[in-house]
Amino acid sequence: MTIISAGEEYIVRGNLIYTESMERFSALSDGGMVVKNGRIQSVGPYSSVADRGIPVLDYRDKLIIPGFVDLHVHAAQYHQIGMGMDETLIRWLEKYTFAEEERFADPERAAVLYADFIRELVYSGTTRAAVFATTHPAATDVLCQLLKKAGLGAFVGKVNMDANAPAELQEETKASLDLTRQFLREWQEDPLVRPILTPRFAPSVTRELLAGLGELAREYQLPVQSHLAENREEVAWVAGLFPERASYLDVYDHYHLFGDTPTLMAHCIYLSAQDIQYMADRKVYAVHCPDSNLNLRSGLMPARKMLRAGVRMGLGSDVGAGNSLFMPHEIVRAIEVSKVYAMNHPEDDPLHLSEAFYLATKGGGSFFGQVGSLEPGYAADFLVVDAADHQGRRSLIEQLEFFLYHGSPRNICARYAAGRPLV
Amino acid sequence: MTIISAGEEYIVRGNLIYTESMERFSALSDGGMVVKNGRIQSVGPYSSVADRGIPVLDYRDKLIIPGFVDLHVHAAQYHQIGMGMDETLIRWLEKYTFAEEERFADPERAAVLYADFIRELVYSGTTRAAVFATTHPAATDVLCQLLKKAGLGAFVGKVNMDANAPAELQEETKASLDLTRQFLREWQEDPLVRPILTPRFAPSVTRELLAGLGELAREYQLPVQSHLAENREEVAWVAGLFPERASYLDVYDHYHLFGDTPTLMAHCIYLSAQDIQYMADRKVYAVHCPDSNLNLRSGLMPARKMLRAGVRMGLGSDVGAGNSLFMPHEIVRAIEVSKVYAMNHPEDDPLHLSEAFYLATKGGGSFFGQVGSLEPGYAADFLVVDAADHQGRRSLIEQLEFFLYHGSPRNICARYAAGRPLV
Repeated sequence: MTIISAGEEYIVRGNLIYTESMERFSALSDGGMVVKNGRIQSVGPYSSVADRGIPVLDYRDKLIIPGFVDLHVHAAQYHQIGMGMDETLIRWLEKYTFAEEERFADPERAAVLYADFIRELVYSGTTRAAVFATTHPAATDVLCQLLKKAGLGAFVGKVNMDANAPAELQEETKASLDLTRQFLREWQEDPLVRPILTPRFAPSVTRELLAGLGELAREYQLPVQSHLAENREEVAWVAGLFPERASYLDVYDHYHLFGDTPTLMAHCIYLSAQDIQYMADRKVYAVHCPDSNLNLRSGLMPARKMLRAGVRMGLGSDVGAGNSLFMPHEIVRAIEVSKVYAMNHPEDDPLHLSEAFYLATKGGGSFFGQVGSLEPGYAADFLVVDAADHQGRRSLIEQLEFFLYHGSPRNICARYAAGRPLV
Repeated sequence: MTIISAGEEYIVRGNLIYTESMERFSALSDGGMVVKNGRIQSVGPYSSVADRGIPVLDYRDKLIIPGFVDLHVHAAQYHQIGMGMDETLIRWLEKYTFAEEERFADPERAAVLYADFIRELVYSGTTRAAVFATTHPAATDVLCQLLKKAGLGAFVGKVNMDANAPAELQEETKASLDLTRQFLREWQEDPLVRPILTPRFAPSVTRELLAGLGELAREYQLPVQSHLAENREEVAWVAGLFPERASYLDVYDHYHLFGDTPTLMAHCIYLSAQDIQYMADRKVYAVHCPDSNLNLRSGLMPARKMLRAGVRMGLGSDVGAGNSLFMPHEIVRAIEVSKVYAMNHPEDDPLHLSEAFYLATKGGGSFFGQVGSLEPGYAADFLVVDAADHQGRRSLIEQLEFFLYHGSPRNICARYAAGRPLV
């Protein structure tokens, strides 16, 4: 196999599949993709781009698809996957998650644990992720360094919590803001690993901290990520904690943390039609985490309603409440959940495969800029997938279907992010 | 690693986990299991069984769990996994499945396709399965030979269809019975691979064929497998085809195909409380196939209601409508579906992990006799699983949780069926 050095121009030959739009797959048999400086320059039949005297990565029997985008994942929860799945959100946080996160006070231990997470993330074919770390600044810095070294693109959040958290994790308001400011200054110039403001969720932040984070967001033009309306009990709790606010999302909105800068909101299960329209208007992303919502019995996210309203959307593994970093599992689960939802809401069609694939690539990728497709101008994030049957009977789309429904990271032969191979 | 020869007595050392009863896991750290002639002779702390001068398989850092039992799988549909998942049952059968099954008219091609299926089945840790082949006798014989060669335990059915099938698959009634008789004579003496009567489902069999199969069942004391109440459209179709019968299950029951001999019925979604009680009384197994039911939008199986009524139950991958042969996926999906069901039926608790694990081991295994547990007298079907974290923090049960929720066949280091290693 040809070895590619940084910045070099090269051609990728293979069967290209991606979703320019949500409605259908674009498939190009024996295609060629010219990559330069980490971006896709041009795409067409291989014959149209060949013979340029530049290296060719010859994957002609394989599928080339965009790298996956995981728009909501808790790096510190990787080791607790599968544990406590008989609980619901609040009990699970208290009994398992907070105990696990306390271990990240020690940055050396964090380095070992985060390395496991990143190894699995890369193996799973994720090339971009929006990541929650923990409240610990040193460990969060370690996470960023490891992601950078791995070559992944990521938004990483040092978590803010100054209320309703165990003593070991709870911060002083001012310290939380100071440490956040320090963290974002260190990482805001990096081309691939960038900071994102991360108030954990409304119950774990005071009004003062929300106000301070809102100021930081505007001062540094920083994106924001948090949780929204995941669980009925949580929604009621937020209403009790912030009685002066009109709704859960208004808690964030009031403090300029809801669309003033690019914003990700995980879950979004219990929202009114008005809330949904407001999300669309504010261009706030709903991050759909179907596995997590099943595991924690949170509810069924009305994905079709969201899409119809024009809400931007991506998929999140939500590990550790979700149980897999392999995004095809989320693609399939998003479809399955939409089918269950449609049983009781016949007006809401289930998601089609191309739609769920889009959410896990171009839909979520748009939060990172031109990411998640194989179109010219897009970042050269791609996977090489072997899903052919030995009899050569499957069409390209059928190979993709087999990979998404039945495949595993074993089917991924190579991974590239921003034009560079991941190992 | 010690090599074991047929019939030899040996000890397996490791951390044993199994479910004697559904309510909880039995876990034995550094346990020992004496195996002789393919059966478990005794189980206890390793120190209590050591020093017998017989070989020891030393898996002391690993988990030893029962092999998985897949109680409903279509071997001929392995290659169509993931295809047509935007359709529902009847359309999916017509558009994809029947076309795929027609390929099995050629036994040489069948040998290639079935070998792929069995390789994946073994890799996935399934040691026993109840398998639908196709209507083709030669290909079904090939499947049995390959299963036998692989060392798996299985009930295999030559499918019967003499109505409402495409011309290429539809049989003459008499020929269907004659070929079935011939098939079961050939295989009924085998200790591991055994025949099971397999009318596809009520719509694809005539009254005459049902009557003939019922006679065969009693004459040869043969088990039966079929589908029951998977989909609303199918239930209505059956009611129209058999207006003289009181219910869907009465179609089978009337012809002595519902509990006169051991019986498996896949799906069982749309049954009345009276039907459910009758299933329990007749000791008919409900095979829960949660992935398939989601993929084909069939519905949510009321597993808790079934268990409460005392219905015997196991889990089925139902590949190709299900999309994975790896039974931990079905275990997790059964729990997830039960959580969704509980959202609208608060009286029906979700399944706990030990319950779903039991269904995929001892519950389904009981159809094969003493199979699916690590108790004395049980067949020595077991898997060696590595799910430890490198920091040694996880308890045995947490290792199992991590494996079931997040693991893959990669975590299985070795597989044994009836005391013999599978390769």
